[in-house]
Amino acid sequence: MAKTKRIEGILSPVVTPFGKDYAPDAQRFVRHCRWLLKNGCAGLAVFGTNSEANSMSVAEKRKLLEALLAGGVPASALMPGTGHCALSDSIEMTKAAVELGCAGVLMLPPFYYKGVSDEGLFRNFAAVIERVGDERLQLYLYHIPPVSQVAITFGLIERLLSKYPGIVAGVKDSSGDWNNTKGMLDNFAKGGFDVFAGSEEFLLANMRGGGKGCITATGNVNPGAINELYKNWRSGEADKMQAAITATRKLVQKQPMIPALKATIAHFGNDPQWKTCRPPLVELNSSQEEQLIRDLKGNGFTMPGLAG
Amino acid sequence: MAKTKRIEGILSPVVTPFGKDYAPDAQRFVRHCRWLLKNGCAGLAVFGTNSEANSMSVAEKRKLLEALLAGGVPASALMPGTGHCALSDSIEMTKAAVELGCAGVLMLPPFYYKGVSDEGLFRNFAAVIERVGDERLQLYLYHIPPVSQVAITFGLIERLLSKYPGIVAGVKDSSGDWNNTKGMLDNFAKGGFDVFAGSEEFLLANMRGGGKGCITATGNVNPGAINELYKNWRSGEADKMQAAITATRKLVQKQPMIPALKATIAHFGNDPQWKTCRPPLVELNSSQEEQLIRDLKGNGFTMPGLAG
Repeated sequence: MAKTKRIEGILSPVVTPFGKDYAPDAQRFVRHCRWLLKNGCAGLAVFGTNSEANSMSVAEKRKLLEALLAGGVPASALMPGTGHCALSDSIEMTKAAVELGCAGVLMLPPFYYKGVSDEGLFRNFAAVIERVGDERLQLYLYHIPPVSQVAITFGLIERLLSKYPGIVAGVKDSSGDWNNTKGMLDNFAKGGFDVFAGSEEFLLANMRGGGKGCITATGNVNPGAINELYKNWRSGEADKMQAAITATRKLVQKQPMIPALKATIAHFGNDPQWKTCRPPLVELNSSQEEQLIRDLKGNGFTMPGLAG
Repeated sequence: MAKTKRIEGILSPVVTPFGKDYAPDAQRFVRHCRWLLKNGCAGLAVFGTNSEANSMSVAEKRKLLEALLAGGVPASALMPGTGHCALSDSIEMTKAAVELGCAGVLMLPPFYYKGVSDEGLFRNFAAVIERVGDERLQLYLYHIPPVSQVAITFGLIERLLSKYPGIVAGVKDSSGDWNNTKGMLDNFAKGGFDVFAGSEEFLLANMRGGGKGCITATGNVNPGAINELYKNWRSGEADKMQAAITATRKLVQKQPMIPALKATIAHFGNDPQWKTCRPPLVELNSSQEEQLIRDLKGNGFTMPGLAG
């Protein structure tokens, strides 16, 4: 079976809207995904850390994925998160994503047990790949030790690439450590392993090093400017563009990131229900929210067309 | 509806047997649970950390719970783990446990996001309690920061006890910090909040401080001796008994705990399939295994009746 073309460019780990009862809101979700694809995102890494994905069940995520496709979002733009602490959940979600035709999946290591061995992590990814058993699978590893507390080491990448070439497609590096991203580029990028920076702060450096783009939280609110740098990274303006998008990011991350993204969408989309987070996360308090909006407006920030 | 009597004494966080294909093995699971109840356990904290519970889906755990009841294990002896990182999974699993008549549930906080607020954790537990909506629910909080990285603070306990008296029943403290357990006893035990030590190392101290027993990994292999101390904690022999069970524990925990428990059951039960762990955990290597068995035998350790 033919593989779909790999996604390159800017991907947003799409925030998930919830109702007052904490139920996922498929309608708002589809609307925001469509806005992102119109405004600079090449792809959507739905069900990432910023999506509160680990606060949702497999069944809830499958439903949202089906709603996206029914709502006209192309599967070729989708790289859903499918890694869970339970092997069986990872298999079920990955299988669903592949069967729906998603371009790839972004997979966390199992993250409950700490200090686990590379052998154990290898067996986890190998079991998922073999149980899914589908040549279309494009698996991106998700390295985010500050949250997962379980790392994807270079040794593990090497072993997976060697056993499953053509399936293991790349990585999102959210370590926040440029030296680690650089090491991934230097060791693996030439072999067709696509490295995405986990923040637009490293977008220019990642492109210069042979990477393929970034998958970034603030892609939820600032995709246009981030994509401009992606398209023009070889231009003389690139460093200036990098400084501008980094400055915007820093304004957002003065507040807790996920509720800040939601408050930004709520404000610029004129839709307060967006502020709700599912426990254990909580929305910004009013002074955090005022500070955020004041900072963004002071910087000339807009989200064109969002309020529709 | 009448609440069942609360469990007191020794509980085992029962290890879960898997087949070569990593599927949970209900038959071996039921057999081990029955052995534990015959050999000193007052209750079974199935689906705990030592059960590799977070490596299993809700559906897999429900099936195992149903197999236990079908296999003659009384619901009044069961305190299944029902806390997941996904709120919806915690609700589903807790509801299933209550509907099956389990004496209680042992609930992890959601553990993917780190640095979350007590407000967010309160909302999580409150949402579970209210969605389950059943007076029979006896909720034990599971404090295990070395693994979950998310703590159950005294402030959170106080708030939950005040809002849900009669539902919030106690805690398992696996912090490994006696001062924390002592603080829980001093602050909450008199109000009917049952404190279980997370290791038999603290069993005697916990009983002297007004606690109700312990929920301990090595309860899987040494329940008889641990229960003897529980029954005789006021006797003059208690300190000596404590020293003996602590010594046995230390032999087991020289190796990685979960595979060591499984290797012990495999050896003394003459059933090698017990060694299998689900990824990301791996079985002991042969030198670890030999060391473990040598240590245990050298100490006169037995598991009477296990090999059946």
